[in-house]
Amino acid sequence: MFNQALIRPQSIVVVGASNNPAKPGGHLLQNLLQYSFGGKLYVVNPKEDSVQGVAACRSVADLPSVELAILAIPAAACVQAVRVLAEEKGTKAFIVVSAGFAESGDMGQQLENELLKLVDQHQGCLIGPNCIGVISPAYAGVFTSPVPALDPRGIDFVSGSGATAVFCLEAGMKKGLRFASVFTVGNSAQIGVEEVLQHWDESFTAESPKVKLLYLEGIRDPQKLLKHARSLRLKGCRIAAIKAGTGESGSRAALSHTGAMASPDVAVDALFRKAGIIRCYGRDELTTVAGLLLLPAMAGNKLAVITHAGGPAVMLTDCLEKGGLQVPRFPDSAQKEGLKSQLYPGSSVENPIDFLATGTAQQLGTIIDCCEHDFPEVDAMVVIFGSPGLVPVSEVYQLLSVKMKSCRKPIYPVLPSVVNANEAIREFMDAGNLVFTDEVAFGHALLKVTNAPQPMPDDRQPSKNVQLQQIIASLPDGFLPPLEAQRLLEAAGIATLGQLQADGEQQALDAAARIGFPLAMKVVGPLHKSDVGGVLLNLRSAEQVAAGFRRLMAIAGTSAVLLSPMLNGLELYIGAKYEKGFGHLIFVGLGGVWLEIMKDVQVALAPVSRTEALQLISKLKALPLLEGYRGQSGVDIGQFADLLVQVSRLVEEAPGISELDLNPIIAEGKRFSPVDIRIALNRK
Amino acid sequence: MFNQALIRPQSIVVVGASNNPAKPGGHLLQNLLQYSFGGKLYVVNPKEDSVQGVAACRSVADLPSVELAILAIPAAACVQAVRVLAEEKGTKAFIVVSAGFAESGDMGQQLENELLKLVDQHQGCLIGPNCIGVISPAYAGVFTSPVPALDPRGIDFVSGSGATAVFCLEAGMKKGLRFASVFTVGNSAQIGVEEVLQHWDESFTAESPKVKLLYLEGIRDPQKLLKHARSLRLKGCRIAAIKAGTGESGSRAALSHTGAMASPDVAVDALFRKAGIIRCYGRDELTTVAGLLLLPAMAGNKLAVITHAGGPAVMLTDCLEKGGLQVPRFPDSAQKEGLKSQLYPGSSVENPIDFLATGTAQQLGTIIDCCEHDFPEVDAMVVIFGSPGLVPVSEVYQLLSVKMKSCRKPIYPVLPSVVNANEAIREFMDAGNLVFTDEVAFGHALLKVTNAPQPMPDDRQPSKNVQLQQIIASLPDGFLPPLEAQRLLEAAGIATLGQLQADGEQQALDAAARIGFPLAMKVVGPLHKSDVGGVLLNLRSAEQVAAGFRRLMAIAGTSAVLLSPMLNGLELYIGAKYEKGFGHLIFVGLGGVWLEIMKDVQVALAPVSRTEALQLISKLKALPLLEGYRGQSGVDIGQFADLLVQVSRLVEEAPGISELDLNPIIAEGKRFSPVDIRIALNRK
Repeated sequence: MFNQALIRPQSIVVVGASNNPAKPGGHLLQNLLQYSFGGKLYVVNPKEDSVQGVAACRSVADLPSVELAILAIPAAACVQAVRVLAEEKGTKAFIVVSAGFAESGDMGQQLENELLKLVDQHQGCLIGPNCIGVISPAYAGVFTSPVPALDPRGIDFVSGSGATAVFCLEAGMKKGLRFASVFTVGNSAQIGVEEVLQHWDESFTAESPKVKLLYLEGIRDPQKLLKHARSLRLKGCRIAAIKAGTGESGSRAALSHTGAMASPDVAVDALFRKAGIIRCYGRDELTTVAGLLLLPAMAGNKLAVITHAGGPAVMLTDCLEKGGLQVPRFPDSAQKEGLKSQLYPGSSVENPIDFLATGTAQQLGTIIDCCEHDFPEVDAMVVIFGSPGLVPVSEVYQLLSVKMKSCRKPIYPVLPSVVNANEAIREFMDAGNLVFTDEVAFGHALLKVTNAPQPMPDDRQPSKNVQLQQIIASLPDGFLPPLEAQRLLEAAGIATLGQLQADGEQQALDAAARIGFPLAMKVVGPLHKSDVGGVLLNLRSAEQVAAGFRRLMAIAGTSAVLLSPMLNGLELYIGAKYEKGFGHLIFVGLGGVWLEIMKDVQVALAPVSRTEALQLISKLKALPLLEGYRGQSGVDIGQFADLLVQVSRLVEEAPGISELDLNPIIAEGKRFSPVDIRIALNRK
Repeated sequence: MFNQALIRPQSIVVVGASNNPAKPGGHLLQNLLQYSFGGKLYVVNPKEDSVQGVAACRSVADLPSVELAILAIPAAACVQAVRVLAEEKGTKAFIVVSAGFAESGDMGQQLENELLKLVDQHQGCLIGPNCIGVISPAYAGVFTSPVPALDPRGIDFVSGSGATAVFCLEAGMKKGLRFASVFTVGNSAQIGVEEVLQHWDESFTAESPKVKLLYLEGIRDPQKLLKHARSLRLKGCRIAAIKAGTGESGSRAALSHTGAMASPDVAVDALFRKAGIIRCYGRDELTTVAGLLLLPAMAGNKLAVITHAGGPAVMLTDCLEKGGLQVPRFPDSAQKEGLKSQLYPGSSVENPIDFLATGTAQQLGTIIDCCEHDFPEVDAMVVIFGSPGLVPVSEVYQLLSVKMKSCRKPIYPVLPSVVNANEAIREFMDAGNLVFTDEVAFGHALLKVTNAPQPMPDDRQPSKNVQLQQIIASLPDGFLPPLEAQRLLEAAGIATLGQLQADGEQQALDAAARIGFPLAMKVVGPLHKSDVGGVLLNLRSAEQVAAGFRRLMAIAGTSAVLLSPMLNGLELYIGAKYEKGFGHLIFVGLGGVWLEIMKDVQVALAPVSRTEALQLISKLKALPLLEGYRGQSGVDIGQFADLLVQVSRLVEEAPGISELDLNPIIAEGKRFSPVDIRIALNRK
């Protein structure tokens, strides 16, 4: 597990150091030497006396005691080296960049197991194997380029894939992103992405970096990820992540190259929402979002778009407004007139503000000051400024740089002239600034950031429903018979329709007499009852019940019929499904075609709080129907949320429930009646 | 209009040429001199004898005859200069880069009118004013940088905004895009985007560039755009376009800086689909799509993803499969085993193919050859190859370059290492190749390109329905009374329900007797009939009709009631709306909540052919309901399409119909009965 030897080692040895910088052990040593590791540096090379100017030991046995070892030697040699280091040299942290472990088959898995066992025995820390290493404020322990300039206020980045980490760094550096640390975890034998998050969470102080980026291919411990991501978010951090491998082939690819476990994508989505993680799908998107997370956040949802060239401002405005942000027209005012008078004729001081191709740095300063002080409609500014190649733009970018630091309202720079203003953009970045070059990619990222999910506090209520536990204990695994399912719901405090079951005609007539007319009858047995004609509605007499009973019992697979009062109302849906590692997913929506054709369903990870339940319901497209639409009466949404919370509690208390479907629930006003109840148990 | 003087001038004069390259007249001349214009070049400058080495005339009057004039002088001076050039120098083409015309107010509009009048009088061609100019194979007539290297097989690009054109060129050049021509139209006094398209269409030959890019802020003549874009598509061209200004503020911005007319976005979408134009929303997207359009198209929908680094391949595969393309697993075969044996142990020859970080150029060649010859599952290849910074990758990129030219199946290069492999990427582009750097941005563009709309042939049927014309002529503008609307539909051959209207109780009873029971009654007058309780269903007796009549007539605004047979079935929707310039938009979907809440509606520009009608219906999310769902009977979709075509013909023959709504149409099997018919006429 994480220790000081990994984070702030006093001494490092590179085992397998080379004079050839094209080899991992060569490049690694080069990086350590170049990026000023302040402690004692040793190298091991069986053939050389000195490597890159560092005196070499021929074998690890020849080393003095050393805190951190970075291994770049063949997999087969790693175990013995680690043994000597751990047992004789007091080494407490190991970064194994070598490949040839679990990712390569059974032999490699065995080597990896031995490695892990050794490190664990000595309470050591193990990064990798099969990774590119670690970059921390103390040392640049990677065998790859580039090593970004480190900044304690920059980004903490952890990646499940080494090459992807490199490409993310490259994409990020092109935008001026600064990094505080980079962890690649490779095969995650001991330390995976979850453990890095845990470390960031548990070591968090006011000085810690606030922006965390994750690249994940598998999630080994979803609950750990949720716990620490949520905790970091609640401490004020902002997190964006890619979880690759969403589809069947993508997962196959992820499996093939890291041995990661495929996770159902809908569960990943639910986890990210609950933890408050912004989900991204590509490197360019991730690094653009990261750029925005490093900049101050908007206090509201209104932007001024300031430009000297109309088109990009129009495209950005389209994008922002489609996503729900506002680029509000400025009301007429003396300030607006005053601003207009300081710009060239033909400039527009509506919003977007267009100060023309000939606009100057001074005019830009005036506009920014005006937005900062005089326009209360503005929560943030986007400045789009490129160059048609006639005059230098450095002066404009210098002003922008100054204003970005001095203004209270955030200013986001979009500098599109990647050819004409290449040099000026580089200077702007060298001054410590971030750069966005495509206004629409910027706009999409801004929408992602402003719509970032809020972490849901963990308000789990430990409670034991004894009756529920007893019922569950008495039932075998598999799908429950309808009346047992009904009993389970009732025990969880969920009112049901009080359905009655009959497998004889007289029994059906007796049940009908107890329920009263009109009533509904349906088959017990067949799965898709409607499809086989197994549902009869609005039966109004004993004769209809008798005839109906005979008709239903004749349907193949039918063992009995269920009778229930005839209800009218909206058809709603609540479901639950157990996902290994994640716990239960809770689903909510309208029933019937809304669920099956429109897929208008919202999902959350259990436990679902009332706040979360209301949020889920409010995100349904069919919400207007719940609220009451065109003279049709709606339902009590608060009560619907309560029912959702009850179902969430039920599966929380009875984790053996692998599936639960209330479909439909007939709802009218305050009454919610689950009409079809399917529950499956699986406690293996 | 377009003429040879613009396209291939023998002589050009720059009026307002300057020695200062920071001035438009200076930069323009520099570009003309630098990019080898082969004809005679003149300059006019009132103060200099020679400008950038070219002997200068003091005034246009001193010029000899000259074919093309490029004006970079104040707006106020342009009219006189053009007059002299047109009247005395035989000048037939004018590019006016000067601003200060229509975009700046009434005075400028007047100047622009005079300019246009003069040019028109002399059958000349006018580009601009307020543009950055034109780049053609013959000359680089722009005052901006960069001027891309010209390639007759490159892109034809036209932009309504000069600065945006510059930024698009910059984004494109970073990807290695090559251009055949660039037109910026500025205020489009004479030549707008539509006219440039017309020129490309009318001058099209087998040698013409096949890829067209458009940046539009307004569409002045939608029908002209449709005609020539569609024609170019049918001749084998591929077109991608941005139409900026989709929302209210965006449109405001577009208006403010080009004087463009805002077009309703749904009409733009419909036009693009009909013309076969790929709609893009940002510069990076547009230029990525353009890159793909320049490369060979995929014959099918199956890709091999080839990489030495898993992560990007996983993200790309996720993106492609979510969008409907396939990255199929390769079935076990001798070829697959053979390939595996030629790669390093641990490589994966499933799809994605991962040949590891240490993979070589030779191995990549083997993989590509295998995909080309041995894997019939592969229609195209994506090669993702970056560099962790250890060894050079030029050899790999050189091989890629060779294979891209020699393979029958398209190969798309994604080169992510924008820092580590910067030089190698530049060499790759210098060899004439395109580069994509972000696999997911590439994936989205590939999906756009493979899902590009097919142009709809214009199968307009000229026919005159005399009866229809007579009825229309007899009616005043405004919303038609229900029975008149019904008469209009009947005249167009659309069967209606045969509704009867009554404004007295006895009349209602008589109508009921003719229609038979059960029947429906609804108010005439109020707009949202259901909302006011103005619809009564399932009336089964004369008593119910009489009581219902009295109840309905008591509703405010009710002048009469309509009686119609009671029907059961799916509620469908067909609508039409006239959009100035575009013609009629035709809408189709299901009625009720499907339309109002789910917005599940498809739109096309009239005329709608039967093929197009079937396509629209097939794109409805609610399609399964039309096809018959869960025991509910569906409708005859062919007949629904026929009805859509009939409505399209109706509005085509009666363009005075400004709005038409059949909502709902009650449909069961082959019977489609418009129950509520709203038609408005507006012939002003």
